[in-house]
Amino acid sequence: MTITGKNIIGFDLSATGTVTFQAANPATSTLLPEQFYNATAGETATAVAKAANAFAAYNQKTAVEKAAFLDAIADEIMAMGDALIERAMSESGLPAARLTGERGRTTSQLKMFARLLREGSWVNACIDTALPERQPLPKPDLRRMMEPVGPVVVFGASNFPFAYSAAGGDTASALAAGCPVIVKAHPSHPGTDELVSQAVISAAKKTNMPDGVYSMLHCDNNGAIELVTNAAIKAVGFTGSRKGGMAIFNAAVNRPEPIPVYAEMSAVNPVIILPGAVAEKGEAIANGLAASVTLGVGQFCTNPGLIFMVDDAVTQTFLKTLSDAIEKTMPATMLSKGICANYENGVARLKDNKAVTVLSTGTTAATADKTEAIPYVFTVPQKDFIADASLSAEVFGPATTIVLCADVDAIKDALKIIEGQLTATVHAAAGDTAVAAVVDLLREKAGRLVFGGFPTGVEVCDAMVHGGPFPATTDGRSTSVGTAAIQRFVRPVAYQNFPQHLLPAALKDNNPLHILRQVNGVWTKNTVAS
Amino acid sequence: MTITGKNIIGFDLSATGTVTFQAANPATSTLLPEQFYNATAGETATAVAKAANAFAAYNQKTAVEKAAFLDAIADEIMAMGDALIERAMSESGLPAARLTGERGRTTSQLKMFARLLREGSWVNACIDTALPERQPLPKPDLRRMMEPVGPVVVFGASNFPFAYSAAGGDTASALAAGCPVIVKAHPSHPGTDELVSQAVISAAKKTNMPDGVYSMLHCDNNGAIELVTNAAIKAVGFTGSRKGGMAIFNAAVNRPEPIPVYAEMSAVNPVIILPGAVAEKGEAIANGLAASVTLGVGQFCTNPGLIFMVDDAVTQTFLKTLSDAIEKTMPATMLSKGICANYENGVARLKDNKAVTVLSTGTTAATADKTEAIPYVFTVPQKDFIADASLSAEVFGPATTIVLCADVDAIKDALKIIEGQLTATVHAAAGDTAVAAVVDLLREKAGRLVFGGFPTGVEVCDAMVHGGPFPATTDGRSTSVGTAAIQRFVRPVAYQNFPQHLLPAALKDNNPLHILRQVNGVWTKNTVAS
Repeated sequence: MTITGKNIIGFDLSATGTVTFQAANPATSTLLPEQFYNATAGETATAVAKAANAFAAYNQKTAVEKAAFLDAIADEIMAMGDALIERAMSESGLPAARLTGERGRTTSQLKMFARLLREGSWVNACIDTALPERQPLPKPDLRRMMEPVGPVVVFGASNFPFAYSAAGGDTASALAAGCPVIVKAHPSHPGTDELVSQAVISAAKKTNMPDGVYSMLHCDNNGAIELVTNAAIKAVGFTGSRKGGMAIFNAAVNRPEPIPVYAEMSAVNPVIILPGAVAEKGEAIANGLAASVTLGVGQFCTNPGLIFMVDDAVTQTFLKTLSDAIEKTMPATMLSKGICANYENGVARLKDNKAVTVLSTGTTAATADKTEAIPYVFTVPQKDFIADASLSAEVFGPATTIVLCADVDAIKDALKIIEGQLTATVHAAAGDTAVAAVVDLLREKAGRLVFGGFPTGVEVCDAMVHGGPFPATTDGRSTSVGTAAIQRFVRPVAYQNFPQHLLPAALKDNNPLHILRQVNGVWTKNTVAS
Repeated sequence: MTITGKNIIGFDLSATGTVTFQAANPATSTLLPEQFYNATAGETATAVAKAANAFAAYNQKTAVEKAAFLDAIADEIMAMGDALIERAMSESGLPAARLTGERGRTTSQLKMFARLLREGSWVNACIDTALPERQPLPKPDLRRMMEPVGPVVVFGASNFPFAYSAAGGDTASALAAGCPVIVKAHPSHPGTDELVSQAVISAAKKTNMPDGVYSMLHCDNNGAIELVTNAAIKAVGFTGSRKGGMAIFNAAVNRPEPIPVYAEMSAVNPVIILPGAVAEKGEAIANGLAASVTLGVGQFCTNPGLIFMVDDAVTQTFLKTLSDAIEKTMPATMLSKGICANYENGVARLKDNKAVTVLSTGTTAATADKTEAIPYVFTVPQKDFIADASLSAEVFGPATTIVLCADVDAIKDALKIIEGQLTATVHAAAGDTAVAAVVDLLREKAGRLVFGGFPTGVEVCDAMVHGGPFPATTDGRSTSVGTAAIQRFVRPVAYQNFPQHLLPAALKDNNPLHILRQVNGVWTKNTVAS
């Protein structure tokens, strides 16, 4: 388990370029020793060509064989033991417990997709049998299922070195769909990405997957665009900043052949706390909110960045409780100097805004040579919020802004102008009769609506939607978490009047995969009468 | 039933602009009397604002109420009787029988979506119940379903004045999804679009749908872009040329908020006839191919424009049969002068290509002042086809090019370079052992694979895929025909820890809609135990 700093191009290591970089430890502000080699144009082209070649061979593998590959990736990751956790700690500044939990989530995701493949019904098989005697024209036999789109590029995120990175949700769902993957490693945790990628390659070899089913490249921004605009790439998964996501989206949709981009970019995750809820359980909500805002140093894409409340006496009590909780919060190390600097700029921007008041901050014992963030809570009157779009921009980190509204109608007016979101949360008590109208507004804005809780914490399950209207993502029709994430990397193909021996197994009369199918309008696992 | 020439903006007629145009009768090359008014920027903005306002009200309607609206549209269209068919004939040059059939297909589509709504399971409800005791963290209750995206713009096609126009598949599926629709009328059949739109408005009033749930505008290209780039529009359906589709796609994805565009644009629908099939049933295939190429004067998006065969003795016999059939075909009126001129240019381009040979043409009795097309069959050697990308460009009309290949491997090499297609067809006999490899190649290229038949004829059913990789469409993840077309206009929304009374009916424990749902991984219509 050695970090080579090289690009992983299928089963080969390659470092033919001359541009190198080092990772930094954000907790100590020191550079880590290894040199990482950015891929040359030639290396990128080779990785894509290998992926394109591997596509057909990978799809000769059965679902069960692909599932074994995914399980093996999980096993290989676990086999790396503490050394992997330690490397991720040194590159991310995240604590061991958090990274151990995230590793568990990552291997669970891989195994979840393996189970999905073994069960098999995810291909949405649909069969309409022929009516040869129909007048005026015979009805043909038509059978449809989902097929993989082709090689996929995955851009991992800085804030999840495992769960949204080399072998994270995008990679797991693309490989499950039948698509070879090329990961663009994240420059803030390149060693972690290399180790995880070694685990993927080891799993690919052990389970006889084709060379090229997985590659990992280091690149700068130009290299990333080169990768995305290669004609053989058919889709992109991305988690990161709005600026980065839009650069990739624009490159992808303006290619000669446009391709889908699933970029999860930014969200302020509004939380609406209706007056009845403040009166009934304000203290619990205030403490819960303080914990959610500062969880993981606010570095979750579901961090609650905007709170909407009616400005009355109970809200003042609520704000006092929230302030007290925030003031007890110690500064904590962010993922990188760049992220910390962006956070400080975002906080400064709000402090400089005349309409904004600092309600409270955390303890200010941060050491200057570390990359530590101090939490902030701001307040702003609703009329100023509505007049200034910059107040609804994301500040990535442990900060939140409370929009104080004259009444519930003023909350609704404010919600109408917010952009698309990953989540939207509402707290309501029995007397809050406006809650249904608020939910109706929020439904148009977010991928996930939360009642009475907090948006941080993204459950990995069938029903999860981790997505949402632009700019939360570039494709609000999708989720990047949960089993439905596989649907991002497939397209429907219909087979008309095909003989049994040429049909994919999922569509054969005798249903050899024992999957649930829609046959002449009825969902069934039965064989098709011929 | 009067044609006013005005824009239909919700329940109002409007003609505040000064730019007018007339429709032409392609069979007589005469202008029809009515003046149609292009929408002004103000009228477009009003139509969009009405659609945005109608969105919430429309979604207060139950699925059964929306289904009644769709059924009523079908009834109102039928109530227009022969006058509607006659208007469509005079604007399209299509014969009465064809238009009567197409009207039937259109009303069937509307009723199909009404049935889909009444059944209700299309929302893909998925429920994962809570595990409050789970360690280390409780599992929340999560419930997901599909929700409409918002107002949709539909661009109808010249070649289907009913089935892909004002109340065609895009409109029917968008309205079924819960999205208000603004139709951009087609300038070659504006009167037909107005009449059909009157039927839609009449149905909307009779079934108490909100003003703005449907509008129809006349616009030039700039007006169309204005419509697509209005911030309140959330998706676009389009059927037409590659140039038109790409102009709309580019405008839509480069908006401040990019939106999905489902543009069905162009295809040459390759047909591969393997040697065994030529030997076994060459005569039947040749006659079937001639009929498919000339059906509807070749004006179907599924017209077979490229044929791949091995150049041997039986193929020569096949070509003779095909020639004989084509030579018997009379010239026929195309949809418009512009389409006929484009066809003639496409034919001239092939005739001028030194590698291309004219195998046969139809009778050449076309009258100069009409807009009639003569069918053409060309041949080209495989090596020239591979060297010249222009030979795989669509020629919209009754022309096809036969690519003569040295052997089956040469066919496969040629298929590797073709672009994305709506359909791909293969003819094979028992001895054609290469068929599986050919199907594997075609699967990556097309939305629908046809065995032993012809691509023309698009069955409206659950399993249909009328779509395909770029440039067949701008979104190969979708179909514009069949029940799955509804999925283009929805996005998933998850509800976390919601109380029963705030959940949509589709997600309530007691399953009041009696739909099929995925509950804790199992598909069932049962209630959820709480």
